[in-house]
Amino acid sequence: MRFEKMHAAGNDYIYINLFEEKVENPGELSIRLSERHFGVGSDGIVLIGPSVQADYSMLMYNADGSEGLMCGNAARCVGKYLYERGMTSKNEISLSTKSGIKHLSLKINNSTNKVELIQVNMGKAILSAKDAGAKGYFQLALNEMIDYPIQFDEQKYRITFVSMGNPHAVIFLHNIESLEIEKIGPKIEHLNLFPDRTNVEFVEVVDSKHIKMRVWERGSGETFACGSGACAAVVAGNIIGKCKSKAKVNMRGGQLEVLWDKASKEVYLTGDAHFVYKGEI
Amino acid sequence: MRFEKMHAAGNDYIYINLFEEKVENPGELSIRLSERHFGVGSDGIVLIGPSVQADYSMLMYNADGSEGLMCGNAARCVGKYLYERGMTSKNEISLSTKSGIKHLSLKINNSTNKVELIQVNMGKAILSAKDAGAKGYFQLALNEMIDYPIQFDEQKYRITFVSMGNPHAVIFLHNIESLEIEKIGPKIEHLNLFPDRTNVEFVEVVDSKHIKMRVWERGSGETFACGSGACAAVVAGNIIGKCKSKAKVNMRGGQLEVLWDKASKEVYLTGDAHFVYKGEI
Repeated sequence: MRFEKMHAAGNDYIYINLFEEKVENPGELSIRLSERHFGVGSDGIVLIGPSVQADYSMLMYNADGSEGLMCGNAARCVGKYLYERGMTSKNEISLSTKSGIKHLSLKINNSTNKVELIQVNMGKAILSAKDAGAKGYFQLALNEMIDYPIQFDEQKYRITFVSMGNPHAVIFLHNIESLEIEKIGPKIEHLNLFPDRTNVEFVEVVDSKHIKMRVWERGSGETFACGSGACAAVVAGNIIGKCKSKAKVNMRGGQLEVLWDKASKEVYLTGDAHFVYKGEI
Repeated sequence: MRFEKMHAAGNDYIYINLFEEKVENPGELSIRLSERHFGVGSDGIVLIGPSVQADYSMLMYNADGSEGLMCGNAARCVGKYLYERGMTSKNEISLSTKSGIKHLSLKINNSTNKVELIQVNMGKAILSAKDAGAKGYFQLALNEMIDYPIQFDEQKYRITFVSMGNPHAVIFLHNIESLEIEKIGPKIEHLNLFPDRTNVEFVEVVDSKHIKMRVWERGSGETFACGSGACAAVVAGNIIGKCKSKAKVNMRGGQLEVLWDKASKEVYLTGDAHFVYKGEI
């Protein structure tokens, strides 16, 4: 079976073209290939296939074999793959995913004909706990959590909660580099406020159009980058007056740009994507 | 550049054939390729090339770009590679390494013509601290450390020290599965007895021809397997009467067989090796 290894912001998946390869049991395949010492090594597999309603479909399986919903980093890689492997000549592509149809916009370098940047609509930012299905808040008779003060271990933090389909607790701080994220991340992830647990974004303002962020993903710990987390950080930062509704977000894995269209509530995520190598197994 | 990903006992390297590819700066290449999210992902790279004194040469670079000495797991993979990729039809191969010339014996399955097992001579087991260059003992006026009692955190352990070119502190215990290796490993690694630090093997007897082992590698933490550690465990176990001089060793990454030839002091390590996939970058 042929595959291509790609990454976007350090999120690395194995991309398999279903027009060329057949995959019978994708969950098992993902477990076997994703293992980093005995297999190929990845965060999971992404299957690129046909779609009735959209130009193409994208199915994702995590390294543990479970089916994933949608991942902005993987969707950007699919956009680059479709264009650079000659499967489309369009720079607007619709992609059917388990979270619905997503739209990609490709920025092509005219001289090289390579895809430089890919924009993905990440859906609506949801602030209301009720709409987000974040049942935990109601313990506090809160429906939104905007710059909400909490305290533990004699430290105070202010949380803004944003759902991008998945939950994000965004905290603005000074000097995130020195933050002991391994200690603080899990404590916030498991606060009683969040019975479904939460991802946590620790964000530092560089200027009003540029923020830096470290991500604590629920169940995973600190990761290189999180596309939906970057979206949540800019939405939260804009609401509490820390940044514009369009801002660059620097993470350990790279830089993304987020645009929150306040009229439609839709959030757009822009960044690059990389081919790493071709493989055959 | 074409490469093959192989593993032996979970020790995974990127194998590059210098008869087909040119590598200008192997240390830098190893750093770049070994990175598990942005690169190919591996424990390092292995370069298979020509040799004046031996059949072939094997050079190793670790994931941090430093040059490695010799690794029994990688040497086994090289044996399989040379035979199955048609570079030799011999089943006795000499390999020039940074630790001198090593001899491989291949066991071929006659019906498939595949390499089932590879035996590597791992050199002499050294028990004398002076010969091993293990300076720490002299503080204790000890030259050998055989079943030597130590105590910390109100627990007693008995250490047998074996050098296989690198240092190993071997400790026989009951029930290694429940061992809190993350706590105990680093404490033994950093004992004052071992100013150069030491690898630590926690070993449980299954029967006199079969032991189980967990490995704490200095600077790396718990690993899937350690070829020289398996050798040290059988040598130590044989000296203190826990096992024969030929025994199977089960580790998280797989099973190896160790034979200590007490006449020559040489230790032979036997195990399998696996192709995972072919890549091009």
